[in-house]
Amino acid sequence: MPPSDPQRLSLNTATVKQQWTLAQAIEGCARHGIRGISPWRDKLAELGLKKAVSLIRSNELSVTGLCRGGFFTAKDWLDDNRRAIEEAHALEADCLVLVVGGLPECSKDLAHARERVQECISKILPEARQAGVPLAIEPLHPMQAADRACVNTLEQALDICDALGGGIGVAVDVYHVWWDPKLESQVMRAGKKRILAYHICDWLVPTRDLAFDRGMMGDGIIELGKIRNWIDAAGYSGFHEVEIFSELNWWKRDPDEVLRTMKERYLQT
Amino acid sequence: MPPSDPQRLSLNTATVKQQWTLAQAIEGCARHGIRGISPWRDKLAELGLKKAVSLIRSNELSVTGLCRGGFFTAKDWLDDNRRAIEEAHALEADCLVLVVGGLPECSKDLAHARERVQECISKILPEARQAGVPLAIEPLHPMQAADRACVNTLEQALDICDALGGGIGVAVDVYHVWWDPKLESQVMRAGKKRILAYHICDWLVPTRDLAFDRGMMGDGIIELGKIRNWIDAAGYSGFHEVEIFSELNWWKRDPDEVLRTMKERYLQT
Repeated sequence: MPPSDPQRLSLNTATVKQQWTLAQAIEGCARHGIRGISPWRDKLAELGLKKAVSLIRSNELSVTGLCRGGFFTAKDWLDDNRRAIEEAHALEADCLVLVVGGLPECSKDLAHARERVQECISKILPEARQAGVPLAIEPLHPMQAADRACVNTLEQALDICDALGGGIGVAVDVYHVWWDPKLESQVMRAGKKRILAYHICDWLVPTRDLAFDRGMMGDGIIELGKIRNWIDAAGYSGFHEVEIFSELNWWKRDPDEVLRTMKERYLQT
Repeated sequence: MPPSDPQRLSLNTATVKQQWTLAQAIEGCARHGIRGISPWRDKLAELGLKKAVSLIRSNELSVTGLCRGGFFTAKDWLDDNRRAIEEAHALEADCLVLVVGGLPECSKDLAHARERVQECISKILPEARQAGVPLAIEPLHPMQAADRACVNTLEQALDICDALGGGIGVAVDVYHVWWDPKLESQVMRAGKKRILAYHICDWLVPTRDLAFDRGMMGDGIIELGKIRNWIDAAGYSGFHEVEIFSELNWWKRDPDEVLRTMKERYLQT
């Protein structure tokens, strides 16, 4: 397989969320020769949108995604998603990542939650299109179906995309989809048109927490090279974004060590 | 929906594995008017097969499954599965449940692991057919794909069944499949012929452990009534087996309380 291209590496700021502000993460990327960044909106709000735009431009970084819109179970979902679209537009982000939300409080009605997701996306999609902000549905691992996202497979996400038309696609995060027997076929189905973001990390054995125990590439069992080849073959030519939630390990480390390690590992896998 | 039928309730002995031997579980079922039991093989070995058969018969219990065969990653998988088939035959079990195993040690090759599962099953299937023991592939939740079972959806399990022919079907455990967008359609595809066992419990929010934090029916978010109706509509007329791994709660309680509670909850859901 072809070697990883360091020019395509991006930092999702969640990877160093306990250690760095957004300003520090931007400067960290520049220092380590990482050309892409994907900020989370809480950090963006802390820094302020204008300052963030200015700092990202002056460091010549690409914004490979904005995390996150979605959570259509929240009361203020419409206003919040509108603001997210505006922010993604200002940042010239490659996409706005949608983590769609799980079951509403006191509800077990999964089918209804899923219908609602599609309805809500259809309501914000015209504004996103107008703003030139592609929406990227991120299917989350089935273990997070109840509390974070009721879209849980690439097939399901692509069915929603097909129902809604243009201006929408998927964020493929290996952590959420590596286990899927239909991964290769659905990546090919998604193709260049629908794959808007590609997130990497690793699945640890054992995994000690359902949300915050992701591994650094190479420390787990995901076939990163194989999946990257599928993504490439499908026509995706964007960044490879490292997103590691790791309460027990990487969030405790020196963030410069984290960036150094992720770059090394990226080049090895 | 029609009320749950107490005659169809079965105890998977894992639910009280920390508290009771198999003999105690058999007597517990009889005491609580639970007509089905599904033993695990470690407990069966402790009691001895002959004694177990005798005690189960004298208490007029149905054996709704034997847990478990499979684990085709183990070195002695062939002998072990042969013994499991013999035991299931002696117990007149409705099926031998197959937990197929995850990735072999030091391997990340998921596709190969999955091919191997199908090959290994094809090797034991003739003996199982001859012994009159249906094999039930249990798709496990994707969060257990690496370490316990690389068959992770009902669709995938049914594809294997279709490739292998008769004498094989699936064990549908709500805990593993509740999140699946294709659950209803795949249950209907499975139908009477392929559904060999139906396991119930609940998915807790939050879930604190990837393996041992299952909930009692009613304590979580699984739509048990809806799924049971699908299973019924598909033609399944067997037992409803309660299987709860619960290190933090039910394994710590008085086992008579556990059986009383599972019976009450079963009748309510």
